Amino acid sequence: MRVRKRKGAEEHLANHPHYVIVNPENAKGKWQEIFGNDKPIHIEVGSGKGAFITGMALQNPDINYIGIDIQVSVLSYALDKVLASGAENIRLLQVDGSSLTNYFADGEINLLYLNFSDPWPKKKHAKRRLTYKTFLDTYKQILPEHGEIHFKTDNRGLFEYSLASFSQYGMVLKQVWLNLHASDFQGNVMTEYEKKFSNKGQVIYRVEARF
Amino acid sequence: MRVRKRKGAEEHLANHPHYVIVNPENAKGKWQEIFGNDKPIHIEVGSGKGAFITGMALQNPDINYIGIDIQVSVLSYALDKVLASGAENIRLLQVDGSSLTNYFADGEINLLYLNFSDPWPKKKHAKRRLTYKTFLDTYKQILPEHGEIHFKTDNRGLFEYSLASFSQYGMVLKQVWLNLHASDFQGNVMTEYEKKFSNKGQVIYRVEARF
Repeated sequence: MRVRKRKGAEEHLANHPHYVIVNPENAKGKWQEIFGNDKPIHIEVGSGKGAFITGMALQNPDINYIGIDIQVSVLSYALDKVLASGAENIRLLQVDGSSLTNYFADGEINLLYLNFSDPWPKKKHAKRRLTYKTFLDTYKQILPEHGEIHFKTDNRGLFEYSLASFSQYGMVLKQVWLNLHASDFQGNVMTEYEKKFSNKGQVIYRVEARF
Repeated sequence: MRVRKRKGAEEHLANHPHYVIVNPENAKGKWQEIFGNDKPIHIEVGSGKGAFITGMALQNPDINYIGIDIQVSVLSYALDKVLASGAENIRLLQVDGSSLTNYFADGEINLLYLNFSDPWPKKKHAKRRLTYKTFLDTYKQILPEHGEIHFKTDNRGLFEYSLASFSQYGMVLKQVWLNLHASDFQGNVMTEYEKKFSNKGQVIYRVEARF
């Protein structure tokens, strides 16, 4: 998700160290301490403006959520949503998706969400897709054995690619949705993109895959 | 594919034993003899009125094709197409998809096609779907190691089910198409259903999966 640069975004994040983790290298292996409980931890890589992760946190108080995005301005909007929600089971992290093993110990994360990731449609940019095998290596390490990735997108090319990428990595597709909003899937929390594109009649794809 | 009963269909098939194999149990392990060469053999399970298998046979003279359907009337229409085509690299078989190991030796088939199979949408009928695990057992046996299934359909529910079924069986998805006709896929031969439904604006799904 690309947004215009927001004035004061960095200060905004810095002013809320309770929610936006500072020096995240130090958090590695200590996330249960940070949350102050031993509930499962779910992360969203590329959390954008935070509608999904905040909605999930409110819907599922027995799970801890971490929204991860590299872009300062985007994350500052997510912080607005977190503050407005009053949810205590959510934190934000301004780091890159390829470096997750620096911030999470092996198996420390119970479930990983990818939502409307950048499709990088050109073949020469395939390595940047968040479902490329090097990213899967990273996810596998911080998830438990048979850990799961739940992925949704409106982008046909990225979804076609990702199904094959998961499968060729040795992951198992638990379930596939080729029109999520026409299905009987319960408890779907929409992202900002999802609201916008489904209003335009775009189909939303979803998959649950496990290592 | 269900069609009205065709008068004289059985006689029509019986009159062409060169193309419609009689006593197929005796053909097991002898398909190269039947074709009179050692070219690869591809089969279509549920070949319907034969537009796909006949089109493929004309397009690919170096491959032998066998169209399989349990329904006599349907197969008699396929026979019309085979006779009209003049193709010598094609045979028809009136047997059930679940009994293929009776008619093919282990590894005798190089590639298996499923096209627009009956979706059997009710959950209680899942076992009848041609991508259910017991069918995959059968296909695996008559295909070589890492043999492939190429499957296309317009039915969203069946495609969602089949991707998961292949994956959970341990098969690998080589490539997935979520809108075949909008893709750069070359050499697609359309089935009767495919022409009809794509003309109605229906999306055609396709997958290549290997054991």
